[in-house]
Amino acid sequence: MEVLCLPRLPRVAVCGGTHGNELSGVYLVRELLKAKKQALKEEKEEKPLSVLMVLGNPKAVQLCRRYVDTDLNRCFTHAILNCPLSDRPPYEMIRSRDLNALLGPKGTRESVDLVCDLHNTTANMGLCFIAYSDCDWICLHIFKYLQMQLPDVPMRYIHFDVSNKESYSLDSVGKHGFAMEIGPQPHGVVRSNIYTAMKLGVQHMMDWIHFFNSGTIFEGGLVEVFTMVKNIDYPRDSETRNITAAIHPQLQDRDFCLLHPGDPLFQTFSGETLSYKGKEPLYPFFINECAYYEKGIALSLARKRRVIIPAIRVQTEEEQQANEENFASEEED
Amino acid sequence: MEVLCLPRLPRVAVCGGTHGNELSGVYLVRELLKAKKQALKEEKEEKPLSVLMVLGNPKAVQLCRRYVDTDLNRCFTHAILNCPLSDRPPYEMIRSRDLNALLGPKGTRESVDLVCDLHNTTANMGLCFIAYSDCDWICLHIFKYLQMQLPDVPMRYIHFDVSNKESYSLDSVGKHGFAMEIGPQPHGVVRSNIYTAMKLGVQHMMDWIHFFNSGTIFEGGLVEVFTMVKNIDYPRDSETRNITAAIHPQLQDRDFCLLHPGDPLFQTFSGETLSYKGKEPLYPFFINECAYYEKGIALSLARKRRVIIPAIRVQTEEEQQANEENFASEEED
Repeated sequence: MEVLCLPRLPRVAVCGGTHGNELSGVYLVRELLKAKKQALKEEKEEKPLSVLMVLGNPKAVQLCRRYVDTDLNRCFTHAILNCPLSDRPPYEMIRSRDLNALLGPKGTRESVDLVCDLHNTTANMGLCFIAYSDCDWICLHIFKYLQMQLPDVPMRYIHFDVSNKESYSLDSVGKHGFAMEIGPQPHGVVRSNIYTAMKLGVQHMMDWIHFFNSGTIFEGGLVEVFTMVKNIDYPRDSETRNITAAIHPQLQDRDFCLLHPGDPLFQTFSGETLSYKGKEPLYPFFINECAYYEKGIALSLARKRRVIIPAIRVQTEEEQQANEENFASEEED
Repeated sequence: MEVLCLPRLPRVAVCGGTHGNELSGVYLVRELLKAKKQALKEEKEEKPLSVLMVLGNPKAVQLCRRYVDTDLNRCFTHAILNCPLSDRPPYEMIRSRDLNALLGPKGTRESVDLVCDLHNTTANMGLCFIAYSDCDWICLHIFKYLQMQLPDVPMRYIHFDVSNKESYSLDSVGKHGFAMEIGPQPHGVVRSNIYTAMKLGVQHMMDWIHFFNSGTIFEGGLVEVFTMVKNIDYPRDSETRNITAAIHPQLQDRDFCLLHPGDPLFQTFSGETLSYKGKEPLYPFFINECAYYEKGIALSLARKRRVIIPAIRVQTEEEQQANEENFASEEED
């Protein structure tokens, strides 16, 4: 068996409240911070892993809104992080730079090894990993491990095929990163079952990182990956731009169930059915997500495929040192 | 059979968007307005019933928030409607007076005959009437009629035992009034099934009013009424006032299922179960309603009883005239 050797993951960040009204992550980060404080008080031995727990948008959390001025989770492109600031910049433009300083800088050797950013959706999506890469073996192996540990939780890996330059979300600041998106949960509400799934997801992720850093070999295998193809907007009134239909009741809550050409897509407010006009069957997700009305997205569509992932283990200290020397000499070139 | 004779209901108001992020009512009122405009264009005969369609809080609808400055649906007490205004009054203090001028004035003969105010909840409550009276035969008969017409929709009548003086919601401005509250639907989202239930509810209500005004006799009978007893808040951190638990998964979504002393009530974020400490079994509702976190309400509890409602019909013109003369002479006294 060929085993790929990858660098250790000594610094990890778990973020919640990047959207202030997605409450599972808010309460989970608070709970983890409380537990950490308690452990420090009891002078428990510090683990060899540094875990940063971060509330992404504390002002928005306070207001229980997605954001104050602009969507924080669209502020982490290199362009936005480095553009000159206006006299009175939106709050999130300041906050994204603070977070980039804390967890990044994005794209540098100083950035944390893994960012897991916690999100909720009103869509019936179960637990999803959302990542910009379909060949980040760390993220894919963590995903595979969680699937095995939590067989009762519907779990999918979503791939947004966006270049590193264009990647815009907080999790893109780490060397590895993904959003853990769980639903259905209304924004501004915390549901015990969703909170618990998230808590277990984070616990198993932390376990995996401990095992990995300690030298465990993880076998390769197959992972199903849903690659985002396109978004579909609601039908809208040409003058007012108000929506004129809702997701069809036969499609509502059926995220990741194949949508065929001709299948019911919307039901207009006067009662008419509008069907899916696409040419190929695709997998719908983010069906009727609350926050996407303003973004013009009624649902997203994905293509499913299987990705073969290699067996992996952590690099030995010697391997890592050799690697770093290579990296340094490359930088000198 | 004794039949109670009640005044005609020539003026009715259907309101939506009193809370700007409860979208079924927003889109239904827009749809009804569009249909009315179309009917006028086609010069269809005006029906003998005047129906006002009103968007309660248009500014909040624009922002897709519950309210702008303060909860509009708590602004309709006589005290608030008549208090002197500050220099820069909250938007909703102005708006409540406008609505009182349009549909009221509350408590006068000029007020509309019936206000039906459309609401959504994140709680799994089905279709509920919420009213301040358990002996308003008009509201109770409409409810009974809807139950018969929509046997597949879970339907309950909730009674808030609050005096007319203290009644605070928009529906209290009419001679008769109730909130039509439907869930579960996340705020900021419209779900086709919930929208359709609301649309059918309003259509059947309008049918009932037509039948009533045309002289139909409605038989009496029994109606189950849930009278609100008390609210229960979330467990909270004594310093931060943040909540420390969510509704227990065994209670979540079980609105109107009897809650017994000792039953699980909350699950803390660290995983502990807290049970219901009350002395008598009661019926929970508004379980985990999004907008009530800030009001300190995790759920409400009600007692169920049966109310006997009499057979009714509309007064003849002669009866009505005689009644009005009585009323006038009373006023002179």
